[in-house]
Amino acid sequence: HSMHKSQTTGTGTHLLETINNSDANIDDIGTYDDFHTIDWLREMSRNRLRHRQILYRKKESFFRTLKGLHDAWSGWLVVLLVGLAAGTCAGLIDIVTKWLTDVKLGTCSGKFWLNQESCCWNSHTAEPSGTGCSEWKTWATIFGVENSNTGLTYGVNYLLYIVSALIFASLAALLVKMFAPYACGSGIPEVKTILSGFIIRGYLGKWTLLIKSITAPLAVASNLSLGKEGPLVHIASCCGNIFAHLFPKYGKNEAKKREVLSAAAAAGVSVAFGAPVGGVLFSLEEVSYYFPMKTLWRSFFCALTAAFILRSINPFGNSHLVMFYVTYNKPWFLFELVPFALIGALGGLYGAAFIHANLAWCKFRKNSKLGNYPILEVVVVTFITAAASYPNPYTRIDASMMIAELVKECGPVMQNNLCDYTASVVNATFSVVKDPPVTPIGSGLRTALWQLALALLFKGIITVFTFGIKVPTGLFIPSMGVGAIMGRLIGVGVEQLVYNYPDCALWKTSCHAGHSCVTPGLYAMVGAAATLGGVTRMTVSLVVIMFELTGGLQYIVPLMAAAMFSKWVGDAFGNEGIYDGHIRLNGYPFLDNKEEFTHTTLATDVMRPRRGDQPLTVIEQEGMTVGDLEHLVRTTKYNGFPVITSHESQQLIGYLYRRDLILALENAHHNNEHVLSNSLVYFTLHAPTPSLGGANDPVPLRLFNIVDLSPITVTDHTPMEIVVEIFSKLGRQALVTHNGKLLGIITKKDVLRHIAQLNKQDPDSILFN
Amino acid sequence: HSMHKSQTTGTGTHLLETINNSDANIDDIGTYDDFHTIDWLREMSRNRLRHRQILYRKKESFFRTLKGLHDAWSGWLVVLLVGLAAGTCAGLIDIVTKWLTDVKLGTCSGKFWLNQESCCWNSHTAEPSGTGCSEWKTWATIFGVENSNTGLTYGVNYLLYIVSALIFASLAALLVKMFAPYACGSGIPEVKTILSGFIIRGYLGKWTLLIKSITAPLAVASNLSLGKEGPLVHIASCCGNIFAHLFPKYGKNEAKKREVLSAAAAAGVSVAFGAPVGGVLFSLEEVSYYFPMKTLWRSFFCALTAAFILRSINPFGNSHLVMFYVTYNKPWFLFELVPFALIGALGGLYGAAFIHANLAWCKFRKNSKLGNYPILEVVVVTFITAAASYPNPYTRIDASMMIAELVKECGPVMQNNLCDYTASVVNATFSVVKDPPVTPIGSGLRTALWQLALALLFKGIITVFTFGIKVPTGLFIPSMGVGAIMGRLIGVGVEQLVYNYPDCALWKTSCHAGHSCVTPGLYAMVGAAATLGGVTRMTVSLVVIMFELTGGLQYIVPLMAAAMFSKWVGDAFGNEGIYDGHIRLNGYPFLDNKEEFTHTTLATDVMRPRRGDQPLTVIEQEGMTVGDLEHLVRTTKYNGFPVITSHESQQLIGYLYRRDLILALENAHHNNEHVLSNSLVYFTLHAPTPSLGGANDPVPLRLFNIVDLSPITVTDHTPMEIVVEIFSKLGRQALVTHNGKLLGIITKKDVLRHIAQLNKQDPDSILFN
Repeated sequence: HSMHKSQTTGTGTHLLETINNSDANIDDIGTYDDFHTIDWLREMSRNRLRHRQILYRKKESFFRTLKGLHDAWSGWLVVLLVGLAAGTCAGLIDIVTKWLTDVKLGTCSGKFWLNQESCCWNSHTAEPSGTGCSEWKTWATIFGVENSNTGLTYGVNYLLYIVSALIFASLAALLVKMFAPYACGSGIPEVKTILSGFIIRGYLGKWTLLIKSITAPLAVASNLSLGKEGPLVHIASCCGNIFAHLFPKYGKNEAKKREVLSAAAAAGVSVAFGAPVGGVLFSLEEVSYYFPMKTLWRSFFCALTAAFILRSINPFGNSHLVMFYVTYNKPWFLFELVPFALIGALGGLYGAAFIHANLAWCKFRKNSKLGNYPILEVVVVTFITAAASYPNPYTRIDASMMIAELVKECGPVMQNNLCDYTASVVNATFSVVKDPPVTPIGSGLRTALWQLALALLFKGIITVFTFGIKVPTGLFIPSMGVGAIMGRLIGVGVEQLVYNYPDCALWKTSCHAGHSCVTPGLYAMVGAAATLGGVTRMTVSLVVIMFELTGGLQYIVPLMAAAMFSKWVGDAFGNEGIYDGHIRLNGYPFLDNKEEFTHTTLATDVMRPRRGDQPLTVIEQEGMTVGDLEHLVRTTKYNGFPVITSHESQQLIGYLYRRDLILALENAHHNNEHVLSNSLVYFTLHAPTPSLGGANDPVPLRLFNIVDLSPITVTDHTPMEIVVEIFSKLGRQALVTHNGKLLGIITKKDVLRHIAQLNKQDPDSILFN
Repeated sequence: HSMHKSQTTGTGTHLLETINNSDANIDDIGTYDDFHTIDWLREMSRNRLRHRQILYRKKESFFRTLKGLHDAWSGWLVVLLVGLAAGTCAGLIDIVTKWLTDVKLGTCSGKFWLNQESCCWNSHTAEPSGTGCSEWKTWATIFGVENSNTGLTYGVNYLLYIVSALIFASLAALLVKMFAPYACGSGIPEVKTILSGFIIRGYLGKWTLLIKSITAPLAVASNLSLGKEGPLVHIASCCGNIFAHLFPKYGKNEAKKREVLSAAAAAGVSVAFGAPVGGVLFSLEEVSYYFPMKTLWRSFFCALTAAFILRSINPFGNSHLVMFYVTYNKPWFLFELVPFALIGALGGLYGAAFIHANLAWCKFRKNSKLGNYPILEVVVVTFITAAASYPNPYTRIDASMMIAELVKECGPVMQNNLCDYTASVVNATFSVVKDPPVTPIGSGLRTALWQLALALLFKGIITVFTFGIKVPTGLFIPSMGVGAIMGRLIGVGVEQLVYNYPDCALWKTSCHAGHSCVTPGLYAMVGAAATLGGVTRMTVSLVVIMFELTGGLQYIVPLMAAAMFSKWVGDAFGNEGIYDGHIRLNGYPFLDNKEEFTHTTLATDVMRPRRGDQPLTVIEQEGMTVGDLEHLVRTTKYNGFPVITSHESQQLIGYLYRRDLILALENAHHNNEHVLSNSLVYFTLHAPTPSLGGANDPVPLRLFNIVDLSPITVTDHTPMEIVVEIFSKLGRQALVTHNGKLLGIITKKDVLRHIAQLNKQDPDSILFN
């Protein structure tokens, strides 16, 4: 929290204008403290006023007309710029990541800046499977130990793999610690909190952008069990924040800025997965809060621009946006919905277990001494990961490459272990093999299955300890990796089941005897969707992202089935996704406006003062002195005070923000030396004219114009559901009245506490909703 | 409006329970009158109560647990059933439409039930272009005039074309008029209004479903300039409504029912275009009102189920869901964004012109005698359409087939007029022609261009008069048809421009000399998107639907460009889509919750009573007699009355619905003969106990429990933006207070009137938003 800067000094000058301005309700006191919630209503009304002013003035001169046009188009311009920036960042990050990942294994002789693929691009010695060429040299070769001793070669490669991983990871951790502490983690929980109206200064700043863009490739290349997809959302949001500041319409208005940030988040997912539609739905479903239709349309534009730029940069050299774009030649059959549902349920189980374990570990880190040694933790986790990963070919390579390999279907020309079936006839005349014969598992595949099972176990466990260390840690790829392994294993199992029992009624009609009708690659894809769904509890956006990866409408049904079962099973074991869990763990005041409030409590059950408490601190419209108010401000910490007619009638007049009151009092002292502690303060329209007779008499102070005359009020009988609805859309506090008399106040924190309490009492209510 | 049935009798029995029930706020008086707005708050709180009851009781017995589970799963079950039904309906309608369309031109000898394609499926005499076979006979052949005289043949075919079109259209009009008047039109404006909380009884009923399903194919087959895609949304919504009634959770709760209807609308678009994701976005963006995340997920499931069923029925026999699924082999180039933007702008212009003209014509129909002769109108329009369509091959065929032909790219084996370029070398060895040489227009293409220009003119005009006649009339296909023609014309123009000026700097680098780099088919697709966008003002859903049709991420940018320019240009000439226009024309009380309210008026400017009006009709909590209240009910028509403490203090207590008051008074008279006109009515918690002394004394009546104690209240200084927000989400009316004193009331109609007035004063405010 070193970025925490007080902005109090900046607002003093605004106040002078405010006090002299009759439109005191809609003013410029829009700068909030760090770790405070914005007032959506106030921001929106400020924007409305600004907009009206431009409208009225635009006929004055040509310059004003141009300014009006600029204002009208700036919404599109800013998302265009954000899209361009997000696409460029993603492209560069992809290229750097690929190079760093390859550098861990070797280097291109004479051209160290090329990665393995580019190095072997024009080589005549390239191996058909694309695993290497003579120009690409492993470290063992460079150090001259190749061929001398197999064990030594292996040892040198192993050692250098670990050393380079350690260098990358500790460099990333150091950079994060020194320059941008906010650059760690995935960033999605915080972006979600910020979009809900919370202020975390510096979280989306220039330094965070720079450091996260540098450290994300380092972290991925160090072979930790993490991805760069979550960080890309954070990086895109940083771009959004930075470009928003170029346009006062967005930069100076926290509510409007969040429209740009929503679009930026969509662009982030769009470039992470090459799925613009999925990105927009992710922003809508998962991270955004206030998402009007106009934002949807602009988010889509932003996501599309970013994807288009990324495609032009073409980091993977395959004209697709992602590493594991696949198409399958074979259809799926209805009976397969059973294993797909099973995969979904297992994915949900894994997700629930992962969330519990990871939250418990993060809590432990927070409350123990472990939290004081972030770099040591990174080094230890990296060492364990690298040491355990190298011997297994599936963990040695980058997780996204592993997924790419697992989701492929076995064609006639594929020669890797995953496709090693006994007596598999490689028939060159079959250009598209629609029904390759089913065969039993070969020895290569048996080895691969063992390796995959070990990889599954290892990755499943290490990810728990990785998500939360102080480097950029995305969760999409590790989750999908675990799921892809699980799916592939089940896929091979189902395939062999069909082979061994060809006469089972379930598949007898679908699968012609002796021909394979099961595509294990599709199972891997379904498994990836299932675990990702279990961990994040995404629904529509998950299916759409996976749909954009597979590029065929026909596979959307298996993906949907897996996502549904994953969500159901996951919700049965804990009703929050990993992001919501981390939001709760960090104690951010996040009120989920996508959850329905299902309880039947009333406003009177939640409001303060509770029975037996001190009465509510209020301000009377007449009769209080400057000294009284200063005492009030000194002795309380409330965000604001209700203004009432008098203690007898208790009729509510309005609400006075603490901030406005402090500034008004300071200002009054400053401007007029006759404002003394015993000056009377009038919060009424018609106050007595200050008598200018006695030079040393205390002059009365009129502060009617700083009272918010339209506070949100509800009656004590109002169902809490409506109060929650009001809080998630409109305000920071609601005043509770009965027959026009003020009874109490409900703040966002009261609502959050109430919801937490109800959910504890009645955890399964959500299931029957 | 013959379906209008009063439901008053049904609620009398409910009231008895209500009066005796202490939970009077949450009761079963949920049946609304026809053409009234539902109370979202009341419906949601009823659902919450029902849900809590099931929760509390589920531990009582195994049966209760099962009931709870059934309740929990019914949300998924109902959307599954709706998806199945919508998919089946769409499949059947597609098959019938295809058959009826072909019957207009001829019949299959011996197998009259086959359409042309099925008839020629196994034929050895089938022509390579798929235009016919010897089994398929035109009517002229059957009547034995073939070959005798070319003119006579043409005449007989022409006549039978017109006659069959007239028969189909008048049959459709008769069926609609006799059985289901609500089955006419596209239905989308009404579905949108219903989803916003309006009640139109019978609009989504069994008869409407049946008649619309029968008449939609008839209307399409009669070659009128209309589509079945809009009606499919209406048909799917009917399925949604019918299946919702199987589950009391949805059938008996108007708010929950609308969740199912939103999902059904998504399924409708999903089957209409084979675009499940686009369908969900259409439902979200265009028609739905209350759309929580849960509904998004279920809508997606529903849309996917429907698409899957339709694919299994396979009405087009091509494993794709739509007639005009296309993929292009060639990329597009950056310079082409200029013509794409131009097409977009033209599409927006066409849309704006169409909306103005169509609304003017519909207004004329409404206010003149024309409205009294719906069937005659249908016959006349059909005659003109059929007579003018037959001579032109592009208007003779079904509009969706025409679009399918226009969006195709010219391959080496295509021999139709659209691909007739001079010296076009058909090279059989080129299996995929990536860069066919550019050539000038051939004579066939020149003819085709003339025919297309005439078709454009004719279709553009006749659609204005067609949308609104009393048969099911969808607007998607005709709009897309006009756009596809326009796009193809411009596409050919650009192609020839590139051919004639190969050295222009714009395309010199992209297009290699002598090779075509322009795909006129893509221009047709972009044009279809542009006009559809101009007419409906869809944005994201439009692009996603077209994206799902073309099936390639790379063409999404041109589509986006066209949609953006179309929307901007269209909005510049009139800020409402055709559906909103028709909603306004029909006077439905629709408050758009997707538009931002951009004005700076306050609640006090909108509330009634206005200055100089009669004071507000209110009820005092004590002192009014049964006679007073009965007089109030007789002499006013208000929806309800605010309850205040007394005329002196004006403190607001609550709100009493007219309906509740009438029923309570009737019931009191019925149950207790001592309730007389001069009985005092107490709306307080502690009323004097009725003195049972004098047998004929009027007993006092306690009606505290029917007062709604949590009415929505706002202060007079509340910005109207917040009031609009409250109206679109929460309530039917808001009470305006000042310092706890009741000042006035704002109803939905006041808000709508206010918005209409502001928009009239300041029409361009929206542009600068």
